[in-house]
Amino acid sequence: MSKELAVVALSGGMDSCVTAAIAAQNYEIAALHINYGQRTEKRELKAFNDIADFYGIKKRLVIDFSHLLAIGGSSLTDKNIEVSKADLTNKEIPTSYVPFRNANILSAAVSWAEVLQASRIFIGAVYEDSSGYPDCRPDFFEAFEKAVNLGTKPETKIKIETPIIHLSKAEIIKKGLELKAPLELTWSCYVNEDKACGVCDSCALRLRAFQQLGIEDPIPYKIRPNYLNNTETR
Amino acid sequence: MSKELAVVALSGGMDSCVTAAIAAQNYEIAALHINYGQRTEKRELKAFNDIADFYGIKKRLVIDFSHLLAIGGSSLTDKNIEVSKADLTNKEIPTSYVPFRNANILSAAVSWAEVLQASRIFIGAVYEDSSGYPDCRPDFFEAFEKAVNLGTKPETKIKIETPIIHLSKAEIIKKGLELKAPLELTWSCYVNEDKACGVCDSCALRLRAFQQLGIEDPIPYKIRPNYLNNTETR
Repeated sequence: MSKELAVVALSGGMDSCVTAAIAAQNYEIAALHINYGQRTEKRELKAFNDIADFYGIKKRLVIDFSHLLAIGGSSLTDKNIEVSKADLTNKEIPTSYVPFRNANILSAAVSWAEVLQASRIFIGAVYEDSSGYPDCRPDFFEAFEKAVNLGTKPETKIKIETPIIHLSKAEIIKKGLELKAPLELTWSCYVNEDKACGVCDSCALRLRAFQQLGIEDPIPYKIRPNYLNNTETR
Repeated sequence: MSKELAVVALSGGMDSCVTAAIAAQNYEIAALHINYGQRTEKRELKAFNDIADFYGIKKRLVIDFSHLLAIGGSSLTDKNIEVSKADLTNKEIPTSYVPFRNANILSAAVSWAEVLQASRIFIGAVYEDSSGYPDCRPDFFEAFEKAVNLGTKPETKIKIETPIIHLSKAEIIKKGLELKAPLELTWSCYVNEDKACGVCDSCALRLRAFQQLGIEDPIPYKIRPNYLNNTETR
């Protein structure tokens, strides 16, 4: 019996890679990648293709969401807004927040899933230990799933799966190691494309988690600050 | 006192034109147009700009949603699927349904609205007399609005306005005439870009409504069948 199909949003970061590893246990994967004019677009696309190759994924869709660039409002897409240095104690929404990005991604994923007759959408959103983005909240995904099932054909039944939403970064890494996910192929840095900067929000969260586990992060860094003295969690 | 800002989804069709006319009564308008690889993309873009000029709208955003073309599944974007001739008695979802299109449009509108600090999104969805698209149902928009307010910044409060959702096409035309909306600048045909075909779903619904009102539709048609013998409503 052939497996059911799941659309997996695969940015190329660690979270989406582990999410793909979880989906691959029970589903055939169709992998969706979004270019949205972010600074590290090319490097993330390479990570997407490397991970998709690793899992033997044939159905791939790469979408250009240049409107998120035109709209701006985020340090990831607007060169006039500086990518903030990590401050893991800050509770405010960081400048890297791309307004309502996950809804844009999910809407495209649902359009594709409806045509492919996929029954699941997997997205590697993280809330507990995240950067504080409002579109990563569990109740956002629940509300969105309701909208999906009201706004698609009666025969379309799509569940939105957020399997790592309550995990800390360290737990995500452990899960990835357990499932033999190719973490060495992932890319998380918001700033650089050759060696990860080590100091942006995304690098800091990732490095701290590897440090908590006492494991070396397999990707190259320009600098690897010690984040273990910072005991605050977000 | 300056007016509040509203993002209006303006396809260039009659419904969105009348929706803009309604929004213009109380709001400053930022107009959003989506190219999604539909057959009549250029003609619709011209209608968008003509209507935006008419209302003196300065904030305009045109987005290319080429992924909806790549995803397919609709006669509007997939040349292998024929645009069905109008059958106004058919209750099935027509081939022109673009999977989950309105969610894709709304998500982009919300991203833009959040950056512009707009308080409203207007969309000219029609349910009562519509083509039967699931993403035009009132409860879809309600559910989506909930997702919006859970998935955006705490200070962002966006209401989704669907002012013509319960109107028939004839009532929409009457409303447009009452508000002096430039219906002569609109384009509805799914097939042609010079003279409207008169026989696709969209032409048929429009022509029938004008015929019901005993008014001549101001745009050019290749043929104008008489749709008044068909007394079924959808």
